[in-house]
Amino acid sequence: MIDMNAAKSFPINAGKCTRHHDLAKVEATGPDARVLISLLRGEPYDLPLTLTMVERHPLGSQAFVPLTRNSFLVVVAPDEGDCPGTPIAFETAPGQGVNIARNVWHGILTPLHGVSDFVVIDRGGEVSNLEEHFFDTPYRVEHG
Amino acid sequence: MIDMNAAKSFPINAGKCTRHHDLAKVEATGPDARVLISLLRGEPYDLPLTLTMVERHPLGSQAFVPLTRNSFLVVVAPDEGDCPGTPIAFETAPGQGVNIARNVWHGILTPLHGVSDFVVIDRGGEVSNLEEHFFDTPYRVEHG
Repeated sequence: MIDMNAAKSFPINAGKCTRHHDLAKVEATGPDARVLISLLRGEPYDLPLTLTMVERHPLGSQAFVPLTRNSFLVVVAPDEGDCPGTPIAFETAPGQGVNIARNVWHGILTPLHGVSDFVVIDRGGEVSNLEEHFFDTPYRVEHG
Repeated sequence: MIDMNAAKSFPINAGKCTRHHDLAKVEATGPDARVLISLLRGEPYDLPLTLTMVERHPLGSQAFVPLTRNSFLVVVAPDEGDCPGTPIAFETAPGQGVNIARNVWHGILTPLHGVSDFVVIDRGGEVSNLEEHFFDTPYRVEHG
């Protein structure tokens, strides 16, 4: 999670600013790899929703930090022999971001409460960095 | 500048999301260099203010993306023989972020309109990455 509840913070700029430091491990590997900063504007989804697919990025992490207080749905799944196992889903707290580590199966960006903007820190490079897995039987994601 | 007015955007996720792609050149060099994601919470400053110092980071860039609609003051200065020349100052548009390139003299983070949170993407590493320059005669920054 990327939020200000992280333990490691310290004052900077003569006490006028607090830095919540180094909240995510940024990974970018492969030919000509570099770290990108992008902005996303996503349309909201409604629950319950049908989860047909998850994806992963073998060469880099992908951090999403919301620019609004809207929470969003996060879906992740363990890897079981290069296929995703049973996914889990949760809703972020307002203001909370996530970092999806390299090679972790996850759902697409899923805002829940209105059009939502995000800063995304992920990898650019010369070779493909996307694997998709479509479930034989889709999952249904609903409020807990 | 880091904002959604950048030309290069494209739809993803079956049209549900727009990606404003690769808005800043992230630089992180030197021993054990890596890219950090941190959150800052800054107290506001009042104008006019006295600019006594600028700093630069020889080994990495530093991007600031605001998490509020508050604008902030940006001060940058050209390099003139390893010292800053005459600084220029501007106020960002609401929602706009900046990326300070490696080795560019700049002022500290200066929110103007209330306590303001930012995502910061900058460099971590083993060796010092900070040069400070204190002006013999401070500058006064005021509304244009």
